[in-house]
Amino acid sequence: MTKKNLKLHAIVAPAQTVVVSAYDEDKKADACTLSFYTMSSHKPPCVTIAINATAKRKTLKSILNSGAFVVGYPGTDQVKEADYLGVESGYNVDKLEKIGFTTSDGQCVNAPIINELRLSLECEVIHQVTIGSHTQITGEIKNIQADESILNDKDNILLNQLKPIIYDEESFSYYDIGDRVADAFKTGAALKRFFIKDDMK
Amino acid sequence: MTKKNLKLHAIVAPAQTVVVSAYDEDKKADACTLSFYTMSSHKPPCVTIAINATAKRKTLKSILNSGAFVVGYPGTDQVKEADYLGVESGYNVDKLEKIGFTTSDGQCVNAPIINELRLSLECEVIHQVTIGSHTQITGEIKNIQADESILNDKDNILLNQLKPIIYDEESFSYYDIGDRVADAFKTGAALKRFFIKDDMK
Repeated sequence: MTKKNLKLHAIVAPAQTVVVSAYDEDKKADACTLSFYTMSSHKPPCVTIAINATAKRKTLKSILNSGAFVVGYPGTDQVKEADYLGVESGYNVDKLEKIGFTTSDGQCVNAPIINELRLSLECEVIHQVTIGSHTQITGEIKNIQADESILNDKDNILLNQLKPIIYDEESFSYYDIGDRVADAFKTGAALKRFFIKDDMK
Repeated sequence: MTKKNLKLHAIVAPAQTVVVSAYDEDKKADACTLSFYTMSSHKPPCVTIAINATAKRKTLKSILNSGAFVVGYPGTDQVKEADYLGVESGYNVDKLEKIGFTTSDGQCVNAPIINELRLSLECEVIHQVTIGSHTQITGEIKNIQADESILNDKDNILLNQLKPIIYDEESFSYYDIGDRVADAFKTGAALKRFFIKDDMK
């Protein structure tokens, strides 16, 4: 390999695209699209999102004021709507109304669920910290609401039905998920067994 | 849609798989695979990772002791090695040696770069907090080292050359990236222009 040093920048490639929603002070639903998002704890299940704190984002303010938010997963069939929610500001227009999205109250937290999204995680803010340009917010998942169309008979989420949107900031493009390439854990466990056997020779 | 509530659990679907490496107290390179990972600031560029704090992971200890780590991106052609690094423990064997991976000192931080990975981010720990089962560590990116094979002539990273591994915990599978489905920003901006024009009618 021939390695070279790149100009310092955030490598958002690949990153999952989600829509985060929260109520503002008038209990109007705000939403914005973001790609700084990860699970951050198994027990209890938590997510961490990071939102630009320098850009006066309305949804950030609403999350911090209300102490709750919902993470919604748009599908590739909703990529126009998802991109729009990241481009326009909630200070200018009612973005959700514009794209025909509707909301319902979360069942467990004080935040709006976008009805048109097939998977929603209701989260309660349990930690926040501003580092660099972004505020990182950790939310504990209090409820998971999924459309039956994305579930198998064991209630596992089917990736090919969820159709998650993958963002690539290097080419400013969205991608879908491709082919299944390997089993997780079994693949590594087989290698582990091989090495242990090899050591015993 | 017909929505139902799911049993509470972490939704790791989809999540990017990375290999995090750090030096232990004897300056031996540790590495582990994880999927709790996101960019968390544009300026300065930062990443946030979360590692299970209850499982006594060696790499977590090494990161916290040394104050530095490297995020390496394995490709789908390295999925066996990546999975093994997540399955085996560094307390048992020299995992990197077993799979034939070699390391070099980071140029800007006190952490090892895995030579066989095509993209590596050298990070300095600037924040840590334990929430739930995991310790979240934010690292400021101090250097980006990329193999020339994954770059275009403008030094943008090519996703189809990087070949990132996407983890789906719902089916315990790894996936690759699929097709490009839309332009980011242009798609939403076109919708924004349409709505503004429509409002002026």
